Amino acid sequence: MEAQRSSYSLIVLHNATIVTMDSRSSVFRNGGMAIEHDRIRAIGQSRDILAEFSGTAGEIIDLHSQILLPGFINTHIHTSQQLARGIADDVDLMTWLHHRIWPYESNMTEEDSFISTLLCGIELIHSGVTCFAEAGGQHVTGMARAVELLGLRACLTQSIMDSGDGLPEPWANRTAEDCIQSQKELYRKHNGTADGRIRVWLGIRQIMNSTDGLLLKTRDTARELATGIHMHVAEIPYENQLIVNTRKVNHGTVTHLKKLDFLQKNLLAAHTVWVDDTEIEFLSNAGVKVSHCPAAAMRMLGFAPIREMLDTSICVSLGTDGAPSNNRMSIVDEMYLASLINKGREVYARGTTDPTALPAETVLRMATINGAKSVLWNEEIGSLEVGKKADLVVINPSTWSMVPLHDSISSLVYCMRTENVVSVMCNGRWIMKDKKILTVDEEEVLSSANEASAQLLRRAGITIPSRMTVL
Amino acid sequence: MEAQRSSYSLIVLHNATIVTMDSRSSVFRNGGMAIEHDRIRAIGQSRDILAEFSGTAGEIIDLHSQILLPGFINTHIHTSQQLARGIADDVDLMTWLHHRIWPYESNMTEEDSFISTLLCGIELIHSGVTCFAEAGGQHVTGMARAVELLGLRACLTQSIMDSGDGLPEPWANRTAEDCIQSQKELYRKHNGTADGRIRVWLGIRQIMNSTDGLLLKTRDTARELATGIHMHVAEIPYENQLIVNTRKVNHGTVTHLKKLDFLQKNLLAAHTVWVDDTEIEFLSNAGVKVSHCPAAAMRMLGFAPIREMLDTSICVSLGTDGAPSNNRMSIVDEMYLASLINKGREVYARGTTDPTALPAETVLRMATINGAKSVLWNEEIGSLEVGKKADLVVINPSTWSMVPLHDSISSLVYCMRTENVVSVMCNGRWIMKDKKILTVDEEEVLSSANEASAQLLRRAGITIPSRMTVL
Repeated sequence: MEAQRSSYSLIVLHNATIVTMDSRSSVFRNGGMAIEHDRIRAIGQSRDILAEFSGTAGEIIDLHSQILLPGFINTHIHTSQQLARGIADDVDLMTWLHHRIWPYESNMTEEDSFISTLLCGIELIHSGVTCFAEAGGQHVTGMARAVELLGLRACLTQSIMDSGDGLPEPWANRTAEDCIQSQKELYRKHNGTADGRIRVWLGIRQIMNSTDGLLLKTRDTARELATGIHMHVAEIPYENQLIVNTRKVNHGTVTHLKKLDFLQKNLLAAHTVWVDDTEIEFLSNAGVKVSHCPAAAMRMLGFAPIREMLDTSICVSLGTDGAPSNNRMSIVDEMYLASLINKGREVYARGTTDPTALPAETVLRMATINGAKSVLWNEEIGSLEVGKKADLVVINPSTWSMVPLHDSISSLVYCMRTENVVSVMCNGRWIMKDKKILTVDEEEVLSSANEASAQLLRRAGITIPSRMTVL
Repeated sequence: MEAQRSSYSLIVLHNATIVTMDSRSSVFRNGGMAIEHDRIRAIGQSRDILAEFSGTAGEIIDLHSQILLPGFINTHIHTSQQLARGIADDVDLMTWLHHRIWPYESNMTEEDSFISTLLCGIELIHSGVTCFAEAGGQHVTGMARAVELLGLRACLTQSIMDSGDGLPEPWANRTAEDCIQSQKELYRKHNGTADGRIRVWLGIRQIMNSTDGLLLKTRDTARELATGIHMHVAEIPYENQLIVNTRKVNHGTVTHLKKLDFLQKNLLAAHTVWVDDTEIEFLSNAGVKVSHCPAAAMRMLGFAPIREMLDTSICVSLGTDGAPSNNRMSIVDEMYLASLINKGREVYARGTTDPTALPAETVLRMATINGAKSVLWNEEIGSLEVGKKADLVVINPSTWSMVPLHDSISSLVYCMRTENVVSVMCNGRWIMKDKKILTVDEEEVLSSANEASAQLLRRAGITIPSRMTVL
C-alpha cells in the first residue's frame, strides 16, 4: 500500500474492486471510499470519491485493483480455547469433554484467557475477521482486555452452566441466580467499552447444563438488558434424546426451547445440527439466528440442514468453533468448507449431488451481512455502506492462489486463502496493514502463548499420547 | 535458513523434527540428514549427522526446530485445467462438462498447457508437493516442458477417449489404436527425462468414453511398457447405471473392469466414490490404488467409502483434482478435508459421528507414502529413508496458525496452512527456499497465465455470468 499523508483524519481508498454486500449486491469495479473517523463517509466510483475528498484527506491509498470486502464476522468461537489447540484431536466426545476440555478450561486463569484471546485474535485478523461472537469462556474480563488491545469488535459471553453431570469442582453448585448476577456484573463492567467495540451477551453452554429456570431467567435478563443470547443448540442426537426423556417433549432441544418461549430474535443458536422440519419452522418463525460451523460439524456433530434453513429464511452465518474442535480459526476456510460440505450433503438429503447448492454469493453473505444480523449489529456492520462502521478487509487476488480470476465472487469463496488477506481495518483503524498486525506484537504473543499453554496443561494434568515412534 | 557453504555437493540439514513416514513411523525429535546429489545419504540424530558429515558438507543448514517431511504427493490433478479456475463454479455437471470444460480443453494449445502446468506447479510447490500424477490432458509435451523447468517429479498422462456422446470435434473419431499409438510415442519421447523426474503413464478419461477394446489394449500396453494407468472410476451414480444398462453387469464400472481383468496393481483409480462392498473387495484383491479427492468429491460426486477401503488394505492416497473442480490445488488443505469429511461421513455410514475416524497419522500417510505407492514410485520416494530420493518439505510450525504445538502430528494435518510450508526440495535440489520459488519466475508465470487464459476463454466462447450488480 502506498499512502500520501496529511494531518486530517479522513482516509480515502481508491482503485479497488469494492464488494459492498449491500442489499443490491453492488460491486464497484473501480471503486473508492472515504472513511471519516470510525465510519464510511462515502462510497462510489474512484474518480468521484477522489474528486470530492482528495483535498481534505489525511491519507489517500491506491489499492491497485485489490478487492475491498466488509470485515468477516465469526459468529461462534471460543477464544479461550486457543491455547488448547491440538489437545483433543481424533478422540471420542467423552474423552474430548471430560479428559481434555473441562480440565483445561477449569484450570484457566484470567491471564490465560487474556493470552488465549490475544493468540486467537491474531489468527482472526490474519483471516480477515473484524468482529466475533464469543461462545462462552470463563474469564470475560481477560477476553475484554485482549479485544480492546487487538482492536477487534466482539460480543463477549461467559460460559454458563447451572446443572449437569460430571462438572469439574469449580463449576459445580452454581445456581441460576449466581449465573445471572455474574453476567449482569460483566455487562455493567464491559458492555459498550473499547470505543463501543465490546458488547456483552448472555450465555447458555448447552441445554444439558441448564435448568429451565436458568433458561427463563436468561431470556428475561436478555430482554431487560436488550442484548443477545449465545447457546449451543442440538449438537448431537444424544442431547435430543436426553431432552425427550427428561423434559417430556416429542423431539429435542429446539422443541423444548419453543415450549419455554425461549426462541427469540436475539438468540444465536450455534451448530443446530439435529433439527427436524418442524423445528426449522420454529426457528424461522421466531427469527432465531443460526451459526453454522462447517469444520466442527464435520468433525464432531454431523450435517446441519443449512439449505433447508436458508429456504425458510433463517439467517445463517458462519463460525469456526474453538481450536480443539476444528483446528483452523479461519472464516476464509469456513467459507470454502461451507460450500463444499453443503453441496456434498445433498447426496444424502436428496439422493444426488448438487454442485449448485449453496453458491458462492450465498456463502459470502453468510460470512458478512448475515454475520452482522446474527450478532444484532447489522445497523452498523456487515456491509460497506455510507454511515456504517469502517470494518473492512483488503484482499490481494493477484497471487498464485487466485490467478486467473474469471469469477471474482466465487474465487473469494473457493480460491481465497489467508495469504490473500493483506490488510484489515476495524472501527476506522488499521489493525493489520500489508500482513503486519499493528495492534499487538505477534512474536511476543506467540511466545507467551507457548509458555502459558504448557503450564496450563501441566496444571490440568493433561498429557497427549504420541502417535509415532519418537527417537 | 542460514547456510554455510563450501564446494562439495553434500547438504547437511540439522536441528529438525524429522517425520520420516518410514514403516516404523520414526520421528527424530532433533534430527539431521545428509543429502548427496539427489539422494538421502544418512538420517539420524543431529549430533551424529553433524559429527559424520560436517567436514565434507557443501552446505550445512540449521533448521531451528522446524519440521522435515517427505514431499507431498498429489495423485490426481489436471495441470492443464489451472487456467480454467473459476470458469465452472456452482454449475450443474452437464454445464460444467459440455459448456465449460470441454470447450476450454478442446481449444487449448500446447503453449496453453505449458503455461497452465507452470501456474499449477507454482501452487503445488507452495503447498509442499514434490510429485504429482497428472489425470490426463491434451498436450503432454507442454506439461513435460513445464515439469522439467519447475523441478518437480511427475507421472504424465494424456487424456484418452475413443467413444462417447457429445465430444468436441477435435476429439471425435479417434480409434483405440490411435490412442495407444499416441501414448506410446509420448512414452518414448518423455519417459525417464528431466533427470528421471518424468514418467509417462497411460490414461483412460472414464469408462463412458472408452470402448472395451481401448481398455484391453491399455491394460496390455501398460504391461508391455511397465507403466501405470490413470483413470477416473465410478464418479457418479449415472456412470454405474449406464454401465449396468450397456455392458450387462450387475453393479457398475468396477464390476465391469473386474470382468475385463482390467483391475491390476498398476491401476490408479481416481475418486472411486460409487462402489459397493463387493467392488471394494475386487479393488483390494487386485491391489488397485485409489486417489481420494475430498474437495472435488464433496463438490461434485459424493462420499467415497474411504474407511472401508482402508479397512480392506486398499492403498488410498490424496489428490486435488483440477482447478475447476475444487479450486484449491493444495494437498495441505486436502489433508484437513480428508479427515473432516470422512469423520462426518460416519454419520451416514453408521448413524453416529465418529471423531476418531481417519486419524491424522493415517491422513499423513495418504499424502506421503501411500501417494508414492499409488504412483508406483515408493522404492524411491514417499518417506525419508537412506537411499531414497531427497524429496522433502520444510515446515515452520512456529507461527500463528500452528502455535501452540501440543500434538505435532495432528497439527500437521489440522492446523498446517500453506503459509507454514517454507522450503521444498525435489530430487536433491531446492525448488523453493524461504517461500521463494527458485526454478521459475513466479510473477512472469502469473502474468502469462492471465493473458493466456483470457485469450483461451475468448477462443472457446466461454463467458461467465456475473453474480452481483456491477457498477
